[in-house]
Amino acid sequence: MTQAKALKALTLVFAGFSGLGGIGPATLSPSVAVAQESMPASSASVDATSPDGRTEISLATANGQPVYTVTRDGKPLIAQSKLGLRFASGANLDRGFEITETAADSHDETWQQPWGEKRTVRDLHNEITARFTSTDDGPERSFTVRARVFDAGVAFRYEVPDTGERALVDEITEFAVEPNATSWWTPAGEYNRYEYIYKTTPVRDIYRVHTPYTLKYDVEGADGPYLAIHEAALVDYAGMWLDQRRAGVLEAELAPRHDGTKVKIDGAFKTPWRVIQIADTAAGLVNGADIYLNLNAPNQLGDVSYFEPGKYVGIWWGMHINKYTWGSGPDHGATTGNTKRYIDFAAENGFSGVLVEGWNIGWDGDWFNNGDKFRFAEPYPDFDIEALSDYAANKGVKLIGHHETAANLPNYESQLDAAFQLYRDNGYSTVKTGYVADASDLVLEDEEGFRRYGWHAGQERVVHDLNVLKKAHEYGLAINAHEPVKDTGLRRTYPNAVSREGARGMEFNAWGSPPNPPEHTAILPYTRLLAGPMDFTPGIFDLMPNGEDNENRIQTTLAKQLALYVVIYSPVQMAADLPENYEANPEPFQFIKDVPADWETSIALDGEVGDFIVQARKDRKSDDWYVGALTDETARTVSVPLDFLDDGRSYTAEIYRDGEDADWQTNPYAITIESRTVTAPDTLELPLASSGGAAVRLVAGR
Amino acid sequence: MTQAKALKALTLVFAGFSGLGGIGPATLSPSVAVAQESMPASSASVDATSPDGRTEISLATANGQPVYTVTRDGKPLIAQSKLGLRFASGANLDRGFEITETAADSHDETWQQPWGEKRTVRDLHNEITARFTSTDDGPERSFTVRARVFDAGVAFRYEVPDTGERALVDEITEFAVEPNATSWWTPAGEYNRYEYIYKTTPVRDIYRVHTPYTLKYDVEGADGPYLAIHEAALVDYAGMWLDQRRAGVLEAELAPRHDGTKVKIDGAFKTPWRVIQIADTAAGLVNGADIYLNLNAPNQLGDVSYFEPGKYVGIWWGMHINKYTWGSGPDHGATTGNTKRYIDFAAENGFSGVLVEGWNIGWDGDWFNNGDKFRFAEPYPDFDIEALSDYAANKGVKLIGHHETAANLPNYESQLDAAFQLYRDNGYSTVKTGYVADASDLVLEDEEGFRRYGWHAGQERVVHDLNVLKKAHEYGLAINAHEPVKDTGLRRTYPNAVSREGARGMEFNAWGSPPNPPEHTAILPYTRLLAGPMDFTPGIFDLMPNGEDNENRIQTTLAKQLALYVVIYSPVQMAADLPENYEANPEPFQFIKDVPADWETSIALDGEVGDFIVQARKDRKSDDWYVGALTDETARTVSVPLDFLDDGRSYTAEIYRDGEDADWQTNPYAITIESRTVTAPDTLELPLASSGGAAVRLVAGR
Repeated sequence: MTQAKALKALTLVFAGFSGLGGIGPATLSPSVAVAQESMPASSASVDATSPDGRTEISLATANGQPVYTVTRDGKPLIAQSKLGLRFASGANLDRGFEITETAADSHDETWQQPWGEKRTVRDLHNEITARFTSTDDGPERSFTVRARVFDAGVAFRYEVPDTGERALVDEITEFAVEPNATSWWTPAGEYNRYEYIYKTTPVRDIYRVHTPYTLKYDVEGADGPYLAIHEAALVDYAGMWLDQRRAGVLEAELAPRHDGTKVKIDGAFKTPWRVIQIADTAAGLVNGADIYLNLNAPNQLGDVSYFEPGKYVGIWWGMHINKYTWGSGPDHGATTGNTKRYIDFAAENGFSGVLVEGWNIGWDGDWFNNGDKFRFAEPYPDFDIEALSDYAANKGVKLIGHHETAANLPNYESQLDAAFQLYRDNGYSTVKTGYVADASDLVLEDEEGFRRYGWHAGQERVVHDLNVLKKAHEYGLAINAHEPVKDTGLRRTYPNAVSREGARGMEFNAWGSPPNPPEHTAILPYTRLLAGPMDFTPGIFDLMPNGEDNENRIQTTLAKQLALYVVIYSPVQMAADLPENYEANPEPFQFIKDVPADWETSIALDGEVGDFIVQARKDRKSDDWYVGALTDETARTVSVPLDFLDDGRSYTAEIYRDGEDADWQTNPYAITIESRTVTAPDTLELPLASSGGAAVRLVAGR
Repeated sequence: MTQAKALKALTLVFAGFSGLGGIGPATLSPSVAVAQESMPASSASVDATSPDGRTEISLATANGQPVYTVTRDGKPLIAQSKLGLRFASGANLDRGFEITETAADSHDETWQQPWGEKRTVRDLHNEITARFTSTDDGPERSFTVRARVFDAGVAFRYEVPDTGERALVDEITEFAVEPNATSWWTPAGEYNRYEYIYKTTPVRDIYRVHTPYTLKYDVEGADGPYLAIHEAALVDYAGMWLDQRRAGVLEAELAPRHDGTKVKIDGAFKTPWRVIQIADTAAGLVNGADIYLNLNAPNQLGDVSYFEPGKYVGIWWGMHINKYTWGSGPDHGATTGNTKRYIDFAAENGFSGVLVEGWNIGWDGDWFNNGDKFRFAEPYPDFDIEALSDYAANKGVKLIGHHETAANLPNYESQLDAAFQLYRDNGYSTVKTGYVADASDLVLEDEEGFRRYGWHAGQERVVHDLNVLKKAHEYGLAINAHEPVKDTGLRRTYPNAVSREGARGMEFNAWGSPPNPPEHTAILPYTRLLAGPMDFTPGIFDLMPNGEDNENRIQTTLAKQLALYVVIYSPVQMAADLPENYEANPEPFQFIKDVPADWETSIALDGEVGDFIVQARKDRKSDDWYVGALTDETARTVSVPLDFLDDGRSYTAEIYRDGEDADWQTNPYAITIESRTVTAPDTLELPLASSGGAAVRLVAGR
């Protein structure tokens, strides 16, 4: 092929690209050779290696184009990929550069989370920085790429000096991955934000996906490694989607601002970290996910002890199954009487919170298109907020607030102080926010008062969310955002960002059309949950909430519902079903009453993306351990070596597992609850039914 | 489901949407009912019906949102879909409107093409306009939607009064189609512009596609109708992609400008027509495609007789198969001697043109990233343009120019006059332009001289192409654009826009990786070719140009190569192979020598998208007819009733068809050439091999 016209065919050549995961750089496939032919390696490059010596990132230029590559055990993982930024005006930072300064650093720090999936986090990494400086005759321009290499993956960010007020229009960061790798993804840039059933396809079949985007390099019989591409510290920037414009070459695509630009810049700025998690196993991805926390700045809020992790019930599922309405009327859910009933139930069963939705003015009529109707400091007349907060306080329970905004940001922002003051006055400490809207219809307002529309994870929304967190902190409130911007580890910096939605949660099982498939919760731990806590709202005991509609039944067993409390981490964990369904099933309900929502440490023991997971966590307030295991539609028995228990100590294992003939389709309620004494050398064998699960409490003996 | 939260689930409900094509409006599926629940029909609406009474468009508002619907034979075809425009500043034109004025009109006109697939075109349609006026208290704003209904489909455009200089950021036009309809598409917004292998999937599986986007409403056993969504008269606007953000709801997505906005507006403007072609059969789509011409303005250039339709050969395929190079050196293709050889061959065999690529300075080194190196008025020293143009003129042949720009618009624009003057001085009348680049890397320059990057079919490129056409006309030159903006029928207004590429052409069969599949040319007539002529460059006789590489062989029979000359319309039709391959096969080559490139009329007789097509065309300069038939990988026999021939006249049918045992994989060269006398009552039975074809010349008797 001629050097010239060959370039037109570059995509096609990439289409023949395979085997990247399984072969060394000396035998790169012809496709890679062609890609590099058009972009020869520069003489100046700078490398950094992970503490365990296995992963290496290299920063360089190729024909003046800043690039990077990543290898693992000497084999290519991310082929040569572009770096750069383009603007609506002034000089771009993309071509015509050379590396003029480099620096290296190592870092080993241990820090603590006020609450979390683990108390102590170690931040051990090596760092390099490369200063890229322009080589042309024009005014000199430069920027820095800072890269960190952890055992759990690599990360890099751009640091750009002050060039005045400009609009960033394109971050051209590429991730050149193996196009035939299997991957798990949800589509980005679509109506329902992040709330989609996961698809499992080769990389080459994606168009635009959300992060974390998880890949398994399984070509030519390889069994890994596993990668997850995501970002950390998304602050005053736009959320990153990944677009595939050539086979295997993913490009950062930033969610647009209302005017089509991507990021409004004024002065020096740093981008979020672009993170490539790397692990030998699927469970390894889960265990390495504190990389995102390590890439965020330390706590900037200080004391957030107003928030305590806990479990809650709520007037919420009743709306989804048409028992109650959000709006006013005869079936209004958020009445004073009904709320007292929930407070009573919470108090009797050890729950610390009661969520009430539909309590404030604005729900009547077409709120979806009229978010400006919401009044966040005006309860419906049949919701006596003062009386209820007294009632709750007397029972040792707190109400959890709810602010549905319909993604109308100016309407919410104009009422934030009044809204938060009302909650503070009434003893609330947590607020669930909501931004239900078409992903491209975030309602904004310009300086002249005209309505503008932004994107769900565009810069305007990112900034809004951060402002809400800061304002909430002033009022001693924690935020649990639904229809959120994706989690990028900001809870380290703003630890009142306690949980969020950001994936298909339990609510989709109320609506059907279709419900979450059996594999859904066997994919979440390796994708969405890598990013951080999720308010999934587990614990539905009536698995046919829409009556005898078998097609739309909830596609799990009862035991799997219990397993979710350990598998899915959230410091606010809901018992989502109606109180009467718990009262009717006290034995399995006991596990929900027992399971904590705050952990000393967490270990993913085993699993495979989309197939199963076995997760162990240790209570932060006792020496007890908990194990959750769940499977997709395939029944399987998982072996759980208990070597994480204290040596020489005996534990009482309270096991909630699928019954003998359990099956999500034919016999979902069959559950066996049994107790036995175990020690560290023991191995639990947990039989999981089709879409089944197991939940184990390991009570430490004296 | 509650009215309130239900809206969050709207997408999910749409996911269950089916049966739209097969049922009447009275039994709309529940999903449609829900969609309409959130958007009740307005009392004021205005309708127009096609001349044959079968197709109806209705314009209305729903809760102040401008909307439209389309029905066919009383059944829904396009469910209620939004209309509107959003801007970066000032008032949007999307919500809070009512219809305040309407008008209706009918139109019947017959006009002629200077060259084309048919001489005479009839424009018969009914038209309505609706003026939408704002209902809020602010300053009144209004816009008009003009809709036309033809037997072949519906079209509408926005007409917006002067509101000053603004940036359009979103055209929110929706097309709510049947999500389970089968569709044929190429991905939009990707590296290789329009040059992709077509995919065949249900609508619900697309993300972002190019137009024409072709659908078959084949749910619940229905056999149609067929739809193609496209646009007409793309002038000073951005090309439209179709995004699916909810199942079945396609949204117009405009290719961005360099700054992320979509269209720069200054004063009153009209959008391109949004067109929904409708037909009962696949062939009906082909026959109805003059709707795009009818929606474009009449000829604004006047006399374009400097251009004459014709066939050409060229120094081109030799580069693709590595016989020659574009750049200088020992294998340089564009030498004076080599060009003379091609001129001789053209003259001997009745070709009117000789294309020569790689003749000008700029090809050496990495031109892909350095389009500013191209010099369009500087031939390589070994290409004596004056001598060659004399040589060609003496033989009755014209050289065809070539301008590869690497999509560097400022470099090309700065040289346009000099480049076109050179061609005019040397007797050229046609120029092939090229814009090889990543679709998002169109090189622009801002007023301060900084490089900016636009999109392949963004407004800047659309405007550039039009400027090139107008400038070329000043110099008596016609344009055949490669890597073009898609065809939207502009050849009616600017008839020196004679052909273009805009899909995977023959060149991909030189590169392999992979070559065009057998179905490719059985999909093109119903998709890309609806839009207009394509310079596909058919006629390759050596089907293994890369040697004995069976995997990358050309996936057709020899007879199918001949059929392409009738199936694919272009007024400049290449005989793409090397002269020696034609000289070695004089019998099949005779068809290429005989077939015209300009037609009196054209009729698609039969076909199915992705399976086969039978196309008949009548020569514009004689009474002869030509028939081309081709099939995908499935061998089949097509029956061709000859009732299009003159009654009572006898014709000599010169039939070029696949030989007995022809098969593209095992015996592609087997061809049977036979002659017989036929009359209008006869039916030709044409056996087509696997990926085979047939080409028939019907010579009219006296």
